[in-house]
Amino acid sequence: METLNGLKRTHYCGDLRESNIDEEVVLMGWVQKKRNLGGLVFVDLRDRSGLCQIIFDTDVNAEAFAKAEKLGSEYVIAVKGKVAERSSKNPNMPTGDIEIFATELRLLNKSETPPIYIKDDDNVSEELRLKYRYLDLRKPSMQKTLMLRSRVANIVRNYLSSNNFFEIETPFLIKPTPEGARDYLVPSRVNEGKFYALPQSPQLFKQLLMVSGMDRYFQIVKCFRDEDLRADRQPEFTQIDCEMSFVEQEDVMAIMEKMVQTIFKETINVDVQLPLPVMTYAEAMERYGSDKPDTRFGYELTNISDIVANCGFGVFANATKDGMSVRGINVKGQSEAISKKQLSKIEDHAKTYKAKGLAWMRIGENREVTSPIAKFFNEEEMTAILDRMNAEAGDLLLFVADKNSVVFDALGQVRLEVARRLNLLDSNVYNMLWVTEFPVFEEDEETGRMIAKHHPFTSPLDEDIERLNGDDKASLRAKAYDIVINGYEVGGGSVRIFNADVQQKMFKALGFSEEEAQEKFGFLLDAFKYGTPPHAGIAFGLDRLVMILAGTTNIKDVIAFPKNQSAVCPMTNAPAVAEDTQLEELSIKVEIADKE
Amino acid sequence: METLNGLKRTHYCGDLRESNIDEEVVLMGWVQKKRNLGGLVFVDLRDRSGLCQIIFDTDVNAEAFAKAEKLGSEYVIAVKGKVAERSSKNPNMPTGDIEIFATELRLLNKSETPPIYIKDDDNVSEELRLKYRYLDLRKPSMQKTLMLRSRVANIVRNYLSSNNFFEIETPFLIKPTPEGARDYLVPSRVNEGKFYALPQSPQLFKQLLMVSGMDRYFQIVKCFRDEDLRADRQPEFTQIDCEMSFVEQEDVMAIMEKMVQTIFKETINVDVQLPLPVMTYAEAMERYGSDKPDTRFGYELTNISDIVANCGFGVFANATKDGMSVRGINVKGQSEAISKKQLSKIEDHAKTYKAKGLAWMRIGENREVTSPIAKFFNEEEMTAILDRMNAEAGDLLLFVADKNSVVFDALGQVRLEVARRLNLLDSNVYNMLWVTEFPVFEEDEETGRMIAKHHPFTSPLDEDIERLNGDDKASLRAKAYDIVINGYEVGGGSVRIFNADVQQKMFKALGFSEEEAQEKFGFLLDAFKYGTPPHAGIAFGLDRLVMILAGTTNIKDVIAFPKNQSAVCPMTNAPAVAEDTQLEELSIKVEIADKE
Repeated sequence: METLNGLKRTHYCGDLRESNIDEEVVLMGWVQKKRNLGGLVFVDLRDRSGLCQIIFDTDVNAEAFAKAEKLGSEYVIAVKGKVAERSSKNPNMPTGDIEIFATELRLLNKSETPPIYIKDDDNVSEELRLKYRYLDLRKPSMQKTLMLRSRVANIVRNYLSSNNFFEIETPFLIKPTPEGARDYLVPSRVNEGKFYALPQSPQLFKQLLMVSGMDRYFQIVKCFRDEDLRADRQPEFTQIDCEMSFVEQEDVMAIMEKMVQTIFKETINVDVQLPLPVMTYAEAMERYGSDKPDTRFGYELTNISDIVANCGFGVFANATKDGMSVRGINVKGQSEAISKKQLSKIEDHAKTYKAKGLAWMRIGENREVTSPIAKFFNEEEMTAILDRMNAEAGDLLLFVADKNSVVFDALGQVRLEVARRLNLLDSNVYNMLWVTEFPVFEEDEETGRMIAKHHPFTSPLDEDIERLNGDDKASLRAKAYDIVINGYEVGGGSVRIFNADVQQKMFKALGFSEEEAQEKFGFLLDAFKYGTPPHAGIAFGLDRLVMILAGTTNIKDVIAFPKNQSAVCPMTNAPAVAEDTQLEELSIKVEIADKE
Repeated sequence: METLNGLKRTHYCGDLRESNIDEEVVLMGWVQKKRNLGGLVFVDLRDRSGLCQIIFDTDVNAEAFAKAEKLGSEYVIAVKGKVAERSSKNPNMPTGDIEIFATELRLLNKSETPPIYIKDDDNVSEELRLKYRYLDLRKPSMQKTLMLRSRVANIVRNYLSSNNFFEIETPFLIKPTPEGARDYLVPSRVNEGKFYALPQSPQLFKQLLMVSGMDRYFQIVKCFRDEDLRADRQPEFTQIDCEMSFVEQEDVMAIMEKMVQTIFKETINVDVQLPLPVMTYAEAMERYGSDKPDTRFGYELTNISDIVANCGFGVFANATKDGMSVRGINVKGQSEAISKKQLSKIEDHAKTYKAKGLAWMRIGENREVTSPIAKFFNEEEMTAILDRMNAEAGDLLLFVADKNSVVFDALGQVRLEVARRLNLLDSNVYNMLWVTEFPVFEEDEETGRMIAKHHPFTSPLDEDIERLNGDDKASLRAKAYDIVINGYEVGGGSVRIFNADVQQKMFKALGFSEEEAQEKFGFLLDAFKYGTPPHAGIAFGLDRLVMILAGTTNIKDVIAFPKNQSAVCPMTNAPAVAEDTQLEELSIKVEIADKE
């Protein structure tokens, strides 16, 4: 193997153009491809920037030619040579107009045959990709995505800095929250038997920074959540975390939507029109069955409960009581595009979201209805339904009847599933909006208790505050706002409570005794006594934002070294068994409970 | 309490100048001081940017005046008013040329009397400052330091980005290293009985990113070390972590010293001359007794072992064997400035660094020597000592005799202690240099085994590589480099081994069997098989760098929410006892060993 010994790279491979012709250049990188042709050796040399064709000619340099003949895939080389106009230009390659005639070749390292191909369209298992991540990351698409991610972070930092935000680091080793069932714990060696937690977000610290007068804070920061992993979740994830003092909801929204506009313009050259549309939570649920509606297509929800309240179809009639409803969507003009088999698949999809079934009506000429449930409605009811649904020939109507939460969830998902099947989700369109006035509380599914929908520091609307300790908690609306892009919640935030009394009332509404509140959040309640400014904030999921910009639906594509679905790193085999002496020092012991 | 209700801040308090006179402004902030004078109320309003004087005059607005009379310290207010030229200007205040006549006042929040004063020169205990950190951070000096820190991070990111580095996030939940006695461990819920570790540095991941062809990586990233806390250590600290491919030591040094130059220019307007001086480790030890020499002053070490080898002073004569020495410094012309009592304190200091004693000679007129050990040397020896030490009237000579490591350490520290006592450490001077050619190995004090001085991935000098598995490990020099500013090691890095065979040899030299090496670092050795480029890197301690720029010696001053000496956060009381159910879910149990 040879060494650089003072040799300096002059260019990246992918940057060379006709304007470089006749220059002497030094390139360094990996052998993507080598072939012998007409007594010459052709090498496609690859680095982060792309590929460049190198020609070894025994007449130019016999020694380099002899070495080049022995090169293999993924060998690491340095090449000195002269840029020439290419004889047979390749318009599919950015450097296709030139080639390099090598005058010197240094073999810096060899390579065994890699276990995965270094090209974007290989078809190996994700587990193998993660095991050999350092090779997987050689793929141009992976490198582009990581560079995109870095650029997004840069744009965010420059934008926020120029808007008077300072980046301030908050601690990673924090106090465990007792209800923080999803905290990662970290045993302390010095403080025997005690634990830190890794932050699920820097929420309390950023609010304390506002108390401290830092005025505008941001941080691009890792957060941690020990929860069951879904396709788009990772144990550690990255937030763009912001907080501002002396502002109201509209101020945060205005600054942050402009940041999103800047990101989209500077990365993928997409123009975002501002201000973004604003929709209340209630409206989003009514129209889309979702608090993160994908507004790239219609098929909005329509409530027909009043029409079917007394109809002969029990499933519908029984679903018109308080808190329940019958709602439908009109898959406009696409009845023929959706076969019986597809319809059954869509119904299965609805059932995974707890719907008991999916009723359908196909509309023919003259509004003739084909449907297994048609017989249950009298003519007046049917006409009212068709009118309400704006039904015309060729339409497909789909209905769910259940309690509202199930109707919204299932029909909202049916709406998305239909759009996927009809290819309506144009990946070149980015529909953004704000969703506001979220409920303050929601019912915990397991315990039935009212818990904070966002977190206990979110301020109710001014007009709702006095009902904080009343009976109708479900109707309280929060000064909370989410930014939604193509059906993804990309960011969310709220105006915070900044008054110790209101914060106490909120803790009470959540069922904490004064002692509990003091024990858990005493330092925040204390801080609120000493002049806390009005403040509000937001956090964006950087991973998800980059996913959207990169056009991928797999979160692992935007993370250099992700964990798999079992929270394991197949490359390093983390997590691992710890040594007994280490555990002793930490005053802990492994004790695996028997499974029943 | 009142609300903003659409009121927008127009300026920061500290930014107003004569050019703003006659403008209507809206300011928001904290009441620093309120006083009644001549029928008016004067308020110094404070925000992040500084102070501004507001005048409430009942003739201007009676309602605002009435409210202003009731204001207390640290109340949070919004003020609308008109900027006027100040009648009695205050040249000590940036806004001293103007004052605001208030036309509207809104009380946004009250404050109880804060437990600590919001001013820089308060004199409360560190523990109280940390307990009320949100108030402590209101102090102008603390806010300036956090803003400085944010600016340093920005400068670093912009500099590195413009030099083709991309910031890539590496994982926080990694595999524990078996010798990583100082790893923080994180139990995995999903993988029962197994543990992640928090990274002490992203070393392996950044090297793997080079294997993956990312070419130039950086990250400003939290790292963790569970070690006993000294004044300048914290359980979590922040590194500016960099790695580059296809470069040699000189390339890394050139790019990184320019970054340091940029930081110093753009933050504290200090010009750094490049290239920085370079000194080998051996030279630094010989001249300064330290691998991080403070070169702001002289008093260099001088070896007199050969002169005293046969002298009558046993302590000296016995310290001239192999691996031992007698060395001294000449405190030039300062004999009178250092009293007997001070000398005794300096000797105590030497003893804390394991010196058995500190010999001294005061030089009088005609090189007359006053010293308790003068009698042990014959005239020839004494003359030789004085000549070697370049002794003149008024000098003070200090000597340590011991094994080399103790001589260097103790005399190096004596040198610093003398400089501190003589006020030679000019805080407006920044002396920087590179220290290179560190030893590859050092002896572990506890076990006597040879361990890696930096880490096992550091490349030896080319000419030393073949002696890697030889007998004289101590003499092997590494391609390692530290950047030193005023005696602080601010950054350190190395050229990495990039050849699997050499890496195996290194592991062998460190006493790992092939199986152990494979078990611990198999993924790196595997990666090295598939075309690893030559690469090198460096990491800077951001905390320490900001300390130097901010002119503080307390690391807690540059961290928003630091831990105390017991690794506890006095504000939140982290760490804390965890709930049993939480521990059960994590398959661990607390078990505190009996102390003997």
